[in-house]
Amino acid sequence: MASSFSAGRLPVIGLMLGDATGIGPEICAKVLAAGAVRDVAHVAVVGDARVLAMGMQDAGVGLAWRAFRAIDEVAWPRDDVPLIDLGNTDPASIRRGEVSAESGRLAGETLKYMIDLALAAKLDGICFAPLNKAALHRGGWEYHDEHQMFAALTRHSGFSGEMNVIKEFATFRVTSHLALREALGLIIAERIVAAIMLADRTIRALQPGKPRIAVAALNPHGGENGLFGDDEIRIIRPAIEEACAAGVDCHGPIPADTIFLRAMRGEFDAVVMMYHDQGQIATKLLGFNKGVTVTAGLKTVFTTPAHGTAFDIVGQGKADAGALEHALRLCARLGANAQRLRS
Amino acid sequence: MASSFSAGRLPVIGLMLGDATGIGPEICAKVLAAGAVRDVAHVAVVGDARVLAMGMQDAGVGLAWRAFRAIDEVAWPRDDVPLIDLGNTDPASIRRGEVSAESGRLAGETLKYMIDLALAAKLDGICFAPLNKAALHRGGWEYHDEHQMFAALTRHSGFSGEMNVIKEFATFRVTSHLALREALGLIIAERIVAAIMLADRTIRALQPGKPRIAVAALNPHGGENGLFGDDEIRIIRPAIEEACAAGVDCHGPIPADTIFLRAMRGEFDAVVMMYHDQGQIATKLLGFNKGVTVTAGLKTVFTTPAHGTAFDIVGQGKADAGALEHALRLCARLGANAQRLRS
Repeated sequence: MASSFSAGRLPVIGLMLGDATGIGPEICAKVLAAGAVRDVAHVAVVGDARVLAMGMQDAGVGLAWRAFRAIDEVAWPRDDVPLIDLGNTDPASIRRGEVSAESGRLAGETLKYMIDLALAAKLDGICFAPLNKAALHRGGWEYHDEHQMFAALTRHSGFSGEMNVIKEFATFRVTSHLALREALGLIIAERIVAAIMLADRTIRALQPGKPRIAVAALNPHGGENGLFGDDEIRIIRPAIEEACAAGVDCHGPIPADTIFLRAMRGEFDAVVMMYHDQGQIATKLLGFNKGVTVTAGLKTVFTTPAHGTAFDIVGQGKADAGALEHALRLCARLGANAQRLRS
Repeated sequence: MASSFSAGRLPVIGLMLGDATGIGPEICAKVLAAGAVRDVAHVAVVGDARVLAMGMQDAGVGLAWRAFRAIDEVAWPRDDVPLIDLGNTDPASIRRGEVSAESGRLAGETLKYMIDLALAAKLDGICFAPLNKAALHRGGWEYHDEHQMFAALTRHSGFSGEMNVIKEFATFRVTSHLALREALGLIIAERIVAAIMLADRTIRALQPGKPRIAVAALNPHGGENGLFGDDEIRIIRPAIEEACAAGVDCHGPIPADTIFLRAMRGEFDAVVMMYHDQGQIATKLLGFNKGVTVTAGLKTVFTTPAHGTAFDIVGQGKADAGALEHALRLCARLGANAQRLRS
């Protein structure tokens, strides 16, 4: 199916409206009505026409859209917004502003439909408005996070994972959503090298030049030369040396309480951290919610705004669509790169 | 010796000039010359007259000071700055701007002298300009940090530890300078309760009212109801309930990547964290270096600016004395409280 893409064509990005109980439909309508990403991507909405209409009403915007039964029917370029209408989600049957197992189940189904399109090379990337993890779980999609779900649905076997992009830098994780005790057991050289290589590959797809990658230490003060733990000496430093030998511009191990100060000063493009909170403590203080979350390392590109469903402001028209626009732009850049690699 | 203090008298604070290789003497001279804390404390410098003179020269300030052989000879109030001259540190014999085992050894000796004065109730608190950990270590003071050193020298046996004070809130630690793997084994209810009680007691000494204390979770998302670890359910929550039952206003466990956002919004006076980097990642991004470090829970009060010896700007007259002034003020408040408790 790769032949269906012609060189130089804008990437085709599938936009999923998010969990229908949250602000997803509203921010999607805002971004689409503003034509905010028309310069970088052909965006096709995949979902239910009634949910999109609800989003337009919430946002107080008009939008020229047209429903299709299948992505193959959509010709590009076009002035209106094409919607692949799955007809699966009736907003009248779902209470907004709270966790709904049914809405979670449907969100998962819609994503699965889109993943199949992407695997058939009919989408170059998938961008989704905020999901609700609890709803997905209750709706039967029992994964520790959406990244694991996407890895399973794309039948991926190697290393992959969450990338968080804020204004100043991006973060990657050696371990993620599991108990800290268990995470310690998974901080091994093989995974550290894989995370560094993933960071290098992903940042290269986003910007020119050789990415400068910082790798966090595990122990306080980076282990203080072995006084407070020797993981840095036994595991992390050798992994960094291996990545350097493979041509990656990577540095560390750097104590976790100074690595983000240095990244903020512009010293690094990406930070590879050992466990979830190491990076999340920093990025949440630095504007995480305005940033973008990417599932990196899979055959299919996935991006989403880092913020959540914001149940407290659902239906009020005041949700900020900035992070979604940024997520769509990142999806377009990564999707265009994937397109190049295929052709 | 408690009888030697009269009610209402300003606390007597011993000021130690820090490691002589760093900016300590300079910032001490600046604060003393400005008379910045005369309203809240009687400050006696303990050290070497030649080091103080060097600090005055670095700072470009004049200072009316007078040397004494012992603290008992100093009468209060007074207009000049009294110096207990130990005559132990000749600046001419020490290279500045680099780690010196000899300077570290002498810094430790000076602190030990001051601790003996405090234990004899002749000082209400000890404030020290920046030390150099590596120098202390090489100089024979082989502790994991200065807090352990002070606990040993004051012959303290219970729970005690580092408190970091930034503009918006203070942090306390259940575990500190040891490998993360080892720290996990020490995150037990008894120590968590002790850390919460220490936070409560220390903040009460600093400000009126009941301190609002937040307690961090250990695992990502606070364990996500047991999905990512059950330490929160088995250990941390019961410890918080025990502290609440003892009358402390404490909250949690709160996921580590949101607890500092809430503290920044003014919801809490103190954050109790489970391990070193949890708090240090946050506070270093939030202005840690302008803050103050306190050794909390010992019979003797210890405070110091959170920043280091700043070897890169030694002798240039441009070191900022703001954090030292803040450290002296905190020392005075904690010292006055200790005075009240003794009387």
